[in-house]
Amino acid sequence: MTKGEKAMATLVMVRHGQSQANLDNVFTGWSDSPLTAKGIAQGHQVGQELRQRGYLFDDVYTSYMRRSIMTANIVLDEIDQLYLPIHKTWRLNERHYGALSGQNKAAVKQRVGAEQLHRWRRGYTEVPPRLAHRQHERRYDRLGVQEPLSESLQMTLQRILPYWQDQIAPRLLDNKNQLIVAHGSSLRALVKYIEQIPDDQIDQVEVPNGQPIVYQFNERLQLLNKEILKEN
Amino acid sequence: MTKGEKAMATLVMVRHGQSQANLDNVFTGWSDSPLTAKGIAQGHQVGQELRQRGYLFDDVYTSYMRRSIMTANIVLDEIDQLYLPIHKTWRLNERHYGALSGQNKAAVKQRVGAEQLHRWRRGYTEVPPRLAHRQHERRYDRLGVQEPLSESLQMTLQRILPYWQDQIAPRLLDNKNQLIVAHGSSLRALVKYIEQIPDDQIDQVEVPNGQPIVYQFNERLQLLNKEILKEN
Repeated sequence: MTKGEKAMATLVMVRHGQSQANLDNVFTGWSDSPLTAKGIAQGHQVGQELRQRGYLFDDVYTSYMRRSIMTANIVLDEIDQLYLPIHKTWRLNERHYGALSGQNKAAVKQRVGAEQLHRWRRGYTEVPPRLAHRQHERRYDRLGVQEPLSESLQMTLQRILPYWQDQIAPRLLDNKNQLIVAHGSSLRALVKYIEQIPDDQIDQVEVPNGQPIVYQFNERLQLLNKEILKEN
Repeated sequence: MTKGEKAMATLVMVRHGQSQANLDNVFTGWSDSPLTAKGIAQGHQVGQELRQRGYLFDDVYTSYMRRSIMTANIVLDEIDQLYLPIHKTWRLNERHYGALSGQNKAAVKQRVGAEQLHRWRRGYTEVPPRLAHRQHERRYDRLGVQEPLSESLQMTLQRILPYWQDQIAPRLLDNKNQLIVAHGSSLRALVKYIEQIPDDQIDQVEVPNGQPIVYQFNERLQLLNKEILKEN
């Protein structure tokens, strides 16, 4: 990072507000848990914070999951930019938690131990036990048998990366401000890529609800600055 | 219409719920009036009705205006299809009401008389007085000087038609169900086109808030059936 270099484009990444699954302390993954009242309030709060800072975005990205789409809609309403194009893609979905989806985290910890749980949750290459069957949800019809049955963080990054490279990065290079509203682990994967965090250090990174990450890049897409907007 | 012909694709058109401008009895046009509490409730009601009928859509279209975008988001949440692609376009905006935008309808009636008011509101070719200046809203930046200063219903249809022909109609022909959430006059223009209503009879047509219109087409995009879902 060269001091005083002119920032071109801004990327803001927002994790969805608290979901019912977050509240119930269960693994979510690709199950479509709705926002809680607190989660809705967090969306409004993030939107108000972004409005105060006067961000004007050109594109919005989110996943196929209602907790992220709802959060994106709430934020766009608060910043009075509902008219922006909103791009929804399965590639920004939460990491697929396999057979752990819907299971209580404390119960899993009791069954497999704290160490295994930590590896599944925070490790880079660890793949949780696979689902026995695909769920055949309509929104994933176009994936067919390519729909994952479980994903490591690495696999999550691998399916996000083509979308980043083909859609988001080119627009940042065109000096367009971009807003991504997604999930704890899909954003953690992007953070790893953008900040070039080594595989064995990514377990230290968390992306909490309600604390947007603001990145600024130069005209070659080198990272100039990172800021985390803490809750007031 | 041939009796018993197999319907291919369904098009549902929804007018946004009540806006603040509707409530205040003012001309809205391209001013960005928000939904009232009643308007939000109408959105939920429409969504519940569509859910009961089990419609599965493939695409959603709306305008650049918050009252329609909010209504679309509410409907998608109610039918649990938030993951659908939502296409926003100025071409589905409400008819531009020119210098009448923001003016009270009763006051305008007193000033110009009931007959002139009716021609402006319900006629096909009548153009309301033009705005003196463009409003330079960011969302219309890409229109430049092509941004309208006032529109007749005919002008409104002319700018909707390319979008219908290039985007919506081809998807209906591909047997994909389409949902349009838009405005009283932009939908009236589409109704005129789809039902081939003569110029001098369009003043009889109204598209009320909260009453979806359901069209079914055959494989050549001939209209097979129309149904209006009345409020319970």
